[in-house]
Amino acid sequence: MSKYIFYAPNPTSENRLSEEESFHASRVLRLKSGDQINLLDGQGGRYAALLDQVDSKKTTFTQLSLLEKQAIIPYQIHIYVAPTKQMERMEWMVEKCCEFGIHGIHFFHSRNSERKEIKLNRLEKIAVSALKQSKNLYLPEISPIKPLSTYMDSLVESASTQRLFAHISDPPVENLSKQLIQNKSYHVLIGPEGDFTPTESADLLRANWTPCSLGKSILRTETACIAATMGIHMVHE
Amino acid sequence: MSKYIFYAPNPTSENRLSEEESFHASRVLRLKSGDQINLLDGQGGRYAALLDQVDSKKTTFTQLSLLEKQAIIPYQIHIYVAPTKQMERMEWMVEKCCEFGIHGIHFFHSRNSERKEIKLNRLEKIAVSALKQSKNLYLPEISPIKPLSTYMDSLVESASTQRLFAHISDPPVENLSKQLIQNKSYHVLIGPEGDFTPTESADLLRANWTPCSLGKSILRTETACIAATMGIHMVHE
Repeated sequence: MSKYIFYAPNPTSENRLSEEESFHASRVLRLKSGDQINLLDGQGGRYAALLDQVDSKKTTFTQLSLLEKQAIIPYQIHIYVAPTKQMERMEWMVEKCCEFGIHGIHFFHSRNSERKEIKLNRLEKIAVSALKQSKNLYLPEISPIKPLSTYMDSLVESASTQRLFAHISDPPVENLSKQLIQNKSYHVLIGPEGDFTPTESADLLRANWTPCSLGKSILRTETACIAATMGIHMVHE
Repeated sequence: MSKYIFYAPNPTSENRLSEEESFHASRVLRLKSGDQINLLDGQGGRYAALLDQVDSKKTTFTQLSLLEKQAIIPYQIHIYVAPTKQMERMEWMVEKCCEFGIHGIHFFHSRNSERKEIKLNRLEKIAVSALKQSKNLYLPEISPIKPLSTYMDSLVESASTQRLFAHISDPPVENLSKQLIQNKSYHVLIGPEGDFTPTESADLLRANWTPCSLGKSILRTETACIAATMGIHMVHE
């Protein structure tokens, strides 16, 4: 496997690197025409290729060959989170969730949200670099901030999905790991630092979302996202 | 509970805050004599007190009363890790492990280690602030870098302990969660980015350390520490 890994979403139909990856190949790594590279399509595919024209804006490749097509795991993880004030915490959450393997990271704003806008582009870059260094070949979908209600309305219950939300209560509700039914598509809501309001929690319960605990500790928002993602994987180990 | 929380290791025998906490109380929070504070002793105790003399170097408190003495959990988590080149990654590892709850974070250097020295003081500060914001009242022991062999020699097998090391192999070894015997004192070694050398792994196996997987993904060193800590807690949920 080449140590030069690039992200190219459609390598079979488009034999060129993005402007950003082109710059990285030519100016940062100083690669030359004929150098061996690997390509990740973010959809389970890992390819070998040779660099053709190396240009800081448009680098092309040739002799594409599929090295590996990673099987899709039988369950899906989607985390929905109210972004924290410090963007840095969301950045590492994305990195870590991608390391563990995740299918979607979706942002919402609710009553106690601290941040109303988010730079998706930067988070997508972090996801791509996490993909390059982990063994996961699937790039998660990262979606912009929407009102919590949007997700509550659009995510309907079905035989193949399980909808949960992190809930701190006394006495505590059951742990996430105890409530998971194997091989579903999991949608987990993680509230803001100030948590969901009692009204929001009541609405979620009324809409049949399952409240779950993530352990005895009070976790920061970003840590809760990691805990949920890792917990779901552990249950399937 | 007061929103002003300070760390004071021996509040019953010493009615004063450290110089650092004194500065925080007087200069940052601008608290006054008579203000209500909470104190954490890092050994399970949470106290109420009133500030007496507020001074940037030596702030004293009075009317100490115990609010809570957190029970010791029936298992212990000790992580041993080869520090990463980027200290920032170890800093967040400490923060996150403290959020989940951990008893000891110990550093070692092995053949592929990237860092030979470490600033304990900064990590201890991070542990204290994580203690203040999580519900854990136990401050972990954080110990300086020692050779891997020191720990291999000093940590002997016993009925109350379980010794494991993160091991990437093909086919993979069994997951940590599958190998844990409940309510032990767990000692988990996490190798450097370049992993343990074959010789080091062989030595660990010969010394009866249990190899374990932390999942299908390749995790960064700091992520592996979180995964092990969280995995141990999950098994006890």
